Amino acid sequence: MAPTDRNLSVVTTGKDDLLLEDRDIPLPGKDEVQIAMQRVGICGSDVHFKKHGGIGDYKVKSPIILGHESSGIVSAVGTNVKHLKVGDRVAIEPGIPCRKCKFCKEGRYNLCPNCFFLACPPDDGSLRRYHCHAADFCFKLPDNVSSDEGALMEPLSVAIHACRRAGLTLGDKVLVLGAGPIGLVCLLTSKAMGAAKVAITDIQDDRLKVANELGASACIKIDESDPKKMAEKVHTTLGWKPDITIECSGVESSFQMGIYATETGGVFQMVGHGNPIKSFPQFVANTREIDIRGTQRYANTYPTALSMIANGLVDVKPLITHRFPLKESVEAFNAAETCKDNAIKVMIHCDE
Amino acid sequence: MAPTDRNLSVVTTGKDDLLLEDRDIPLPGKDEVQIAMQRVGICGSDVHFKKHGGIGDYKVKSPIILGHESSGIVSAVGTNVKHLKVGDRVAIEPGIPCRKCKFCKEGRYNLCPNCFFLACPPDDGSLRRYHCHAADFCFKLPDNVSSDEGALMEPLSVAIHACRRAGLTLGDKVLVLGAGPIGLVCLLTSKAMGAAKVAITDIQDDRLKVANELGASACIKIDESDPKKMAEKVHTTLGWKPDITIECSGVESSFQMGIYATETGGVFQMVGHGNPIKSFPQFVANTREIDIRGTQRYANTYPTALSMIANGLVDVKPLITHRFPLKESVEAFNAAETCKDNAIKVMIHCDE
Amino acid sequence: MAPTDRNLSVVTTGKDDLLLEDRDIPLPGKDEVQIAMQRVGICGSDVHFKKHGGIGDYKVKSPIILGHESSGIVSAVGTNVKHLKVGDRVAIEPGIPCRKCKFCKEGRYNLCPNCFFLACPPDDGSLRRYHCHAADFCFKLPDNVSSDEGALMEPLSVAIHACRRAGLTLGDKVLVLGAGPIGLVCLLTSKAMGAAKVAITDIQDDRLKVANELGASACIKIDESDPKKMAEKVHTTLGWKPDITIECSGVESSFQMGIYATETGGVFQMVGHGNPIKSFPQFVANTREIDIRGTQRYANTYPTALSMIANGLVDVKPLITHRFPLKESVEAFNAAETCKDNAIKVMIHCDE
Amino acid sequence: MAPTDRNLSVVTTGKDDLLLEDRDIPLPGKDEVQIAMQRVGICGSDVHFKKHGGIGDYKVKSPIILGHESSGIVSAVGTNVKHLKVGDRVAIEPGIPCRKCKFCKEGRYNLCPNCFFLACPPDDGSLRRYHCHAADFCFKLPDNVSSDEGALMEPLSVAIHACRRAGLTLGDKVLVLGAGPIGLVCLLTSKAMGAAKVAITDIQDDRLKVANELGASACIKIDESDPKKMAEKVHTTLGWKPDITIECSGVESSFQMGIYATETGGVFQMVGHGNPIKSFPQFVANTREIDIRGTQRYANTYPTALSMIANGLVDVKPLITHRFPLKESVEAFNAAETCKDNAIKVMIHCDE
Repeated sequence: MAPTDRNLSVVTTGKDDLLLEDRDIPLPGKDEVQIAMQRVGICGSDVHFKKHGGIGDYKVKSPIILGHESSGIVSAVGTNVKHLKVGDRVAIEPGIPCRKCKFCKEGRYNLCPNCFFLACPPDDGSLRRYHCHAADFCFKLPDNVSSDEGALMEPLSVAIHACRRAGLTLGDKVLVLGAGPIGLVCLLTSKAMGAAKVAITDIQDDRLKVANELGASACIKIDESDPKKMAEKVHTTLGWKPDITIECSGVESSFQMGIYATETGGVFQMVGHGNPIKSFPQFVANTREIDIRGTQRYANTYPTALSMIANGLVDVKPLITHRFPLKESVEAFNAAETCKDNAIKVMIHCDE
Repeated sequence: MAPTDRNLSVVTTGKDDLLLEDRDIPLPGKDEVQIAMQRVGICGSDVHFKKHGGIGDYKVKSPIILGHESSGIVSAVGTNVKHLKVGDRVAIEPGIPCRKCKFCKEGRYNLCPNCFFLACPPDDGSLRRYHCHAADFCFKLPDNVSSDEGALMEPLSVAIHACRRAGLTLGDKVLVLGAGPIGLVCLLTSKAMGAAKVAITDIQDDRLKVANELGASACIKIDESDPKKMAEKVHTTLGWKPDITIECSGVESSFQMGIYATETGGVFQMVGHGNPIKSFPQFVANTREIDIRGTQRYANTYPTALSMIANGLVDVKPLITHRFPLKESVEAFNAAETCKDNAIKVMIHCDE
Repeated sequence: MAPTDRNLSVVTTGKDDLLLEDRDIPLPGKDEVQIAMQRVGICGSDVHFKKHGGIGDYKVKSPIILGHESSGIVSAVGTNVKHLKVGDRVAIEPGIPCRKCKFCKEGRYNLCPNCFFLACPPDDGSLRRYHCHAADFCFKLPDNVSSDEGALMEPLSVAIHACRRAGLTLGDKVLVLGAGPIGLVCLLTSKAMGAAKVAITDIQDDRLKVANELGASACIKIDESDPKKMAEKVHTTLGWKPDITIECSGVESSFQMGIYATETGGVFQMVGHGNPIKSFPQFVANTREIDIRGTQRYANTYPTALSMIANGLVDVKPLITHRFPLKESVEAFNAAETCKDNAIKVMIHCDE
Repeated sequence: MAPTDRNLSVVTTGKDDLLLEDRDIPLPGKDEVQIAMQRVGICGSDVHFKKHGGIGDYKVKSPIILGHESSGIVSAVGTNVKHLKVGDRVAIEPGIPCRKCKFCKEGRYNLCPNCFFLACPPDDGSLRRYHCHAADFCFKLPDNVSSDEGALMEPLSVAIHACRRAGLTLGDKVLVLGAGPIGLVCLLTSKAMGAAKVAITDIQDDRLKVANELGASACIKIDESDPKKMAEKVHTTLGWKPDITIECSGVESSFQMGIYATETGGVFQMVGHGNPIKSFPQFVANTREIDIRGTQRYANTYPTALSMIANGLVDVKPLITHRFPLKESVEAFNAAETCKDNAIKVMIHCDE
């Protein structure tokens, strides 16, 4: 709780290394707060930056601090900050847009080309003792929302944004492709939005088992490589066709299967990445008017995520399977990378 | 279960009378089914047509059979009907539009000017032993959905349509004005759609008690006649402002209060009628961009309502407080009219 | 004007043949009108069915009459028909949906799986002397709209549907890929909807010349096979990025180029077919939230198309480059197939 | 062009006075530009603040500088400003929101409760020699857009926002109530968005004459005090019912008439103010699902307005009927107040 280091920070150079460095404690600008970090969840992108040094155009060219799924306690406030005070627990929305471009002004600030984003090179992350952040991107947690949940509002935001973009609403039948952490929060969020059915697919039984425990209507193991045949199998198994398919695996065959599986007039929501160039049944998507939509992070989701958790619409806590103190971040990343003991979400305690 | 009458039907001339008449059993057209009626709920409009002989432009000029919240068992099928067979239990969507006008073609068939609608003069209703109906407006009930629930899909449809028109979605804070049957289904539907909070108002304690049992976030008794002051009281009580207000009371002061109470940029959804001319704070609605939207019955709600019930998203059964056999329809209407023993929904068993 | 044949009809067996057969004159059903055909435009699909015997799953298994872009004069009316009388000139909307499925009820009747559609196997078309059609899919032409324009309301409908699905609105910058008949009506429709800029691409100079005459902001010749490089070239040429790209060529490289070219947060509207399986830059579409939407024919476009033409919002007449009497349909198809003399739209006069 | 005063500014205390005061020339902050003002149009609100000292909750408690429809030449730039340089001509969007509240983040910054807005008390306006403004709310005018047009982008923005909120699109039939400056820009904008018909009403013949010259489909003089009867008269005159009615008069009887006149399922778009409490036919609006929407200024309209003017979609120049140099602002306001010589828009030249 009271570490003797000044500001222990978890750094990578992108060459599959992880360095625990002691840095200066930053002071908040006038519109910022300084946060004594509590929880940081490890995301697939953290692992990717560490291991492979980049994702798409984002390259780790100089060392960066990792971590962007995070919560903490306000430890100092800038002079302009009115809505937060020292001692408040907060969830941290990791992206701070320019506030001036057309995307920002139109409410799609996730598309801002000048967005600062925690742990997205060259921007440093929040996996450390102290971090300073724009106060209006910090959300005060009420007493009934834990700091664990505050950190999980980040992956939950991805799901909210995906489900919103998909236009998911009451009575929809949903198919989630991929039962990793993002697939699972999409499952939970779909149900909270009033989906009548939410089925989920994966290639791993243990992941489907978790999905089943979290309330999936059906859990389908992918065991057929032909996308069209697999889609038919899905239809047969479910007895219905999804109005909305949410692709969280990034796998090309899953992508193709999902287009075939989606009901005419439905939505195919992309979330996962994988191979940057993919082939797909365009004639089917075109003539059946299956809209294919993208998901770049999220915007305006934190208030919703907080509201969902505070009012009991979702329980994201079961996603946390492993915990490590900040000093054992190497072990934490190891668990996340290897999915040790069926790890779903590995949570690092920055205050330990 | 096996009535000796041919087709006992509950008729009114609109002069506060209720006649039980024995009519011929109708035969289904080629696209119709004949239905042995099971359940018909009494709606406020049934009471109104009986008691006052009309609502707005709809006048009871010649005797009509009442009843439009209904379910039954298919007893004969027309030659073109494929999706239903004798013995299927069905919920009956009461309005059959012309299928040819621009409203029908655009998916807003509830606005069709040539719509047949059960128990809306001059069209007969379904409160009788046998009724024939367009087969595609009959929805087969699965085993886990009761005929009671089938009949309640009608008021539930009103709520679904209202909540859809309001654009209600995940995390919204909702205020329902009026805790009668429609207010209560709006409460249940709002929650199923992912509302974070749903508060409800009424002038009667016993209705608020029911709302509380059905899961309202807050139940507020209207005890202040000045709409602006009452709105402030609502804000103080709740600690939040509603993104969406659903007006189900039809009372002018409630209407006005709701506009003042609604959050800037929100939606004020009209459902209730009451005084056809109302005054409202137009400057507030205009400058705070509070959109005021209407609700004319519903369209495309039955599949959703069925899905909600079949998949456990709502439990509408607690709304039924009283039951009567068809032969005691006079007593049933009496209970509904007088709200005897805090009646919410009075259900008539047509097969008894 | 007064042909001696009974009902000369242009038939194909799908084996690159065209037969002029004399058929019986059909009588209208009670909700139908009989139409003395005036104009039928030849569409790419007519040519395709004749030449190749099929498109996607639609196969010419037995002889069909061709033609679906059509207008005529009402020559008899069914007993139920109120809004039309003998002598009225009408434009014919070629698809008649089932009116009962969820797609029909939701206003997306173009997705109806049981839709009758002129000249889509196994359904006969309207390239003949007399045709009977559902009266509510016949639109009376006012005096200031010619029968030529009535027939052109069909391709115009494709464009309206595409532009609507794309959400095109005031001030949008649009890129149309492919300057064939559909690309050209998309250009005209985009401008009528308030697009600030509409650029168009093609590989043929003469088509771009026509696009230029029709008011394209810029005409770009595709002269680079690498889609990404071509997209950069488009950006450089235009000095702007399209908010909306409408793909009318069906060519895979054009499809790919269009994704790269579209502005972040924009829409990529599919219209053209071509290779049923296509590869595309999915990472780009996903992370830049470029939505990819399909176009299956159209719904609720005829009233709009008629209104546009009657009120002078578009002038589609310049699209007609060739005319033939019905008896010379072989020559007409030959002109359409070979794009003889830069044919854009070949119009057949059924009354000559 | 080269005034000897430092910064002549037009001030009111809200007691029907107008003072020409010489103020200091402000220096731009780091994200601001300093603008040598060129054109400022007089708006009804400027007149109102001068004459009556307030509108709604906005009260002139201490002297304010008037003017918010404005354009000028950049005369100095802040250190952070990249997209503008000294000498650029710019249109000035008058409202600068907080950029941090939920409304700002959701793209509805016009609803920001902490918005700075030119000449809205207590904020000073731009009717002066020099004004400093947030650079990202200044839009560089291309050579083919005049500074007059730059100033008129403000009222045009009101129309764009109203038409957008109304969901106006291709083929819509529109009725504009009130042919003052805002009604006229709504007419022009509706046409640019693809309206098939745009009719307009007023009580003054000379205003209707201008509307006719600007391309109204029909100009209707209000000569009947009963709103329902007037609505029927409008229907008879037009031969159609408006899909969208845009209320720009603020008059209660016009408001009521507009609800009656609007087509079932249509939109009634509020723009004008007038009496803050209004009565309206709520039963009609509710059962015919006529949505009533508000308009608070505008957001994200300036890029569209600029695009419309630069690409010739509207010609707003005919709105300017009178011109005065800055020193004659008293005479200018007099002309605007009295609608002298049928004044529509009075433009002040700040550089003269």
